[in-house]
Amino acid sequence: MSDRSERLVDLLAAQEVDLLLVTSLVNVRYLTGYTGSNGLALIGPQTRVFVTDFRYVEQAAVEVDSSFDRQRAQLELLDTIPASLPSGELRLGFDDASLTVAEHAGLREALPDRVALVSAGGLVERLRMVKEPDELQRIRVAAQAADAALSQLLERGLTGRTERELATALERAMVDQGAQRPSFESIVAAGLNGARPHATPRDVEVGAGELVVIDWGAEVDGYCSDSTRTVASTEPDGEARAIYELVLEAQLAGLEAVRAGADAREVDAAARAVIDAAGHGPDFGHGLGHGVGIEVHEAPRLSRRSEDQLQSGNVVTVEPGIYLPGRFGVRIEDLVVVDDGGGEILTALDKGLLVVG
Amino acid sequence: MSDRSERLVDLLAAQEVDLLLVTSLVNVRYLTGYTGSNGLALIGPQTRVFVTDFRYVEQAAVEVDSSFDRQRAQLELLDTIPASLPSGELRLGFDDASLTVAEHAGLREALPDRVALVSAGGLVERLRMVKEPDELQRIRVAAQAADAALSQLLERGLTGRTERELATALERAMVDQGAQRPSFESIVAAGLNGARPHATPRDVEVGAGELVVIDWGAEVDGYCSDSTRTVASTEPDGEARAIYELVLEAQLAGLEAVRAGADAREVDAAARAVIDAAGHGPDFGHGLGHGVGIEVHEAPRLSRRSEDQLQSGNVVTVEPGIYLPGRFGVRIEDLVVVDDGGGEILTALDKGLLVVG
Repeated sequence: MSDRSERLVDLLAAQEVDLLLVTSLVNVRYLTGYTGSNGLALIGPQTRVFVTDFRYVEQAAVEVDSSFDRQRAQLELLDTIPASLPSGELRLGFDDASLTVAEHAGLREALPDRVALVSAGGLVERLRMVKEPDELQRIRVAAQAADAALSQLLERGLTGRTERELATALERAMVDQGAQRPSFESIVAAGLNGARPHATPRDVEVGAGELVVIDWGAEVDGYCSDSTRTVASTEPDGEARAIYELVLEAQLAGLEAVRAGADAREVDAAARAVIDAAGHGPDFGHGLGHGVGIEVHEAPRLSRRSEDQLQSGNVVTVEPGIYLPGRFGVRIEDLVVVDDGGGEILTALDKGLLVVG
Repeated sequence: MSDRSERLVDLLAAQEVDLLLVTSLVNVRYLTGYTGSNGLALIGPQTRVFVTDFRYVEQAAVEVDSSFDRQRAQLELLDTIPASLPSGELRLGFDDASLTVAEHAGLREALPDRVALVSAGGLVERLRMVKEPDELQRIRVAAQAADAALSQLLERGLTGRTERELATALERAMVDQGAQRPSFESIVAAGLNGARPHATPRDVEVGAGELVVIDWGAEVDGYCSDSTRTVASTEPDGEARAIYELVLEAQLAGLEAVRAGADAREVDAAARAVIDAAGHGPDFGHGLGHGVGIEVHEAPRLSRRSEDQLQSGNVVTVEPGIYLPGRFGVRIEDLVVVDDGGGEILTALDKGLLVVG
């Protein structure tokens, strides 16, 4: 884990920053191992400081990488920063997407003039994009738990159970399969609810002739999975089946385009072209996918506006969808490890349209 | 719900602010009814604007109070703000504890010079402190679900089950009792793990002769409960029982001090005096309690440094604890509605030391 701080320090020089203040908890976790809910890190060539409050001192003693000087703050964690800085003129970087205006103002006031506060966001996120073998293994195990949970859910059937019951049963099955928790609130959305890309499960029973969008993931040892399947409660009509096949074709085209070195925008375009060609472009209103790791949504982004380039070790979703408001929706999502070849698909469930009953 | 915006507008004048930009999602939810994960509100005497992105347009149409003009942003929600402002010179307030440095910089750049951006945090939190009858009712139902779940858990016994198994069973029981989800990650901490105020459940079985700290809560219709009981797996030794009785005495003293008009600091002091007098002051390292509502930790704070005064309609926890590192811990926590008399205790479970086995 101390390798990560060293790689971060390598990035600091290019940003003309001497030290980085890390305040986002997921980034603190990535760099130090700390999993509590109040902590920060200060990292520079000769500096490894971790700060928490009294509640987490014992936890930090167990979790935080031993290369860090572990400090306990009296009240506000940021109050410890001035005393932890090396001497001389300094450029102290901070993440402007994490630090609030109030925190920034308090810190600026507490710092001596010799310290310049410099916006330097996204550096840890850049490291996190490329997963280490141990991280990949945790994501694999999470994906397996999620797969097994869906299979278990579908064995008992869908019809006559409410969306909320199904979501709860799916989440419990993931925990029974070894997950610590769901990686996000599961979506189980039947019929017209499936036309909402971020639907909330309702207290409404799944009926006959409905497509049901199920978007779920497991968290194992701090790492997430994320996948989606759309299943039918009875044999769907011709149009629903045609939309399903179209989304599947787009999803396969997206997967085909995933490889190290590819522009994320082009991977999005490969899938989108299939849907555009069928006249459903306006019904696919979101990006093709996103990175997954400690967070269920992280870099890189696969979208029309993305400027990311895929690298070996990225873990991304490929999840095109078509949403017909007031009618139904279809989304199919796999989790993929990017490598120099095509990629390793972590979601092992079938993608032919399942009729479950 | 539109009353809440009106009450907020009443507060704006005293802050010398013409409009308030509300970016914290819990505050957006409180003011508009919106429960999605991307949205903001702009509120002034003649202004009620709600903004979300395409994913939540349908949800917002159902959820957001009809007094709001519902807008859809193309990419960044804040981009819509300049066009939504009234004409003339304006002081636009924002919550400096929510807005990030990057968001602030982007907004400042997009705003014309006639608009001053003014720090104005904590106003919505001030409204949220005083619960309406409907909010109290949701918290009551959440507390009842939590109570019933603990009773169910204890019926099956503790010994031989791991902390993690117990936490999972407790959380499932809350959902079975009608909660949508736990209001935070449950703490089940036996023996020396109980000496950590924010312990994480371990894969370790509860043994004989252990005190087990259980801190859990339910979320019902967007509102939280929070309570703690410490139970014994077999008859504890004299010292453990004495510590238990001391914490209970402190807890009762704290409850006794809760009333509308009391200084939160004095309520903390009433409980702390009992523990201090027994020489365990240093082992009670946290505040006595906190407000509970949409968030499980919100205003007012009951602590040595609090400057809050209790008001009728506050909902607070009263939760002294004694933590003996490497040995054991005891915490007893009730959820209380503040009123002009003593207060309505929402946690109905017994507080005599339970020996569960």
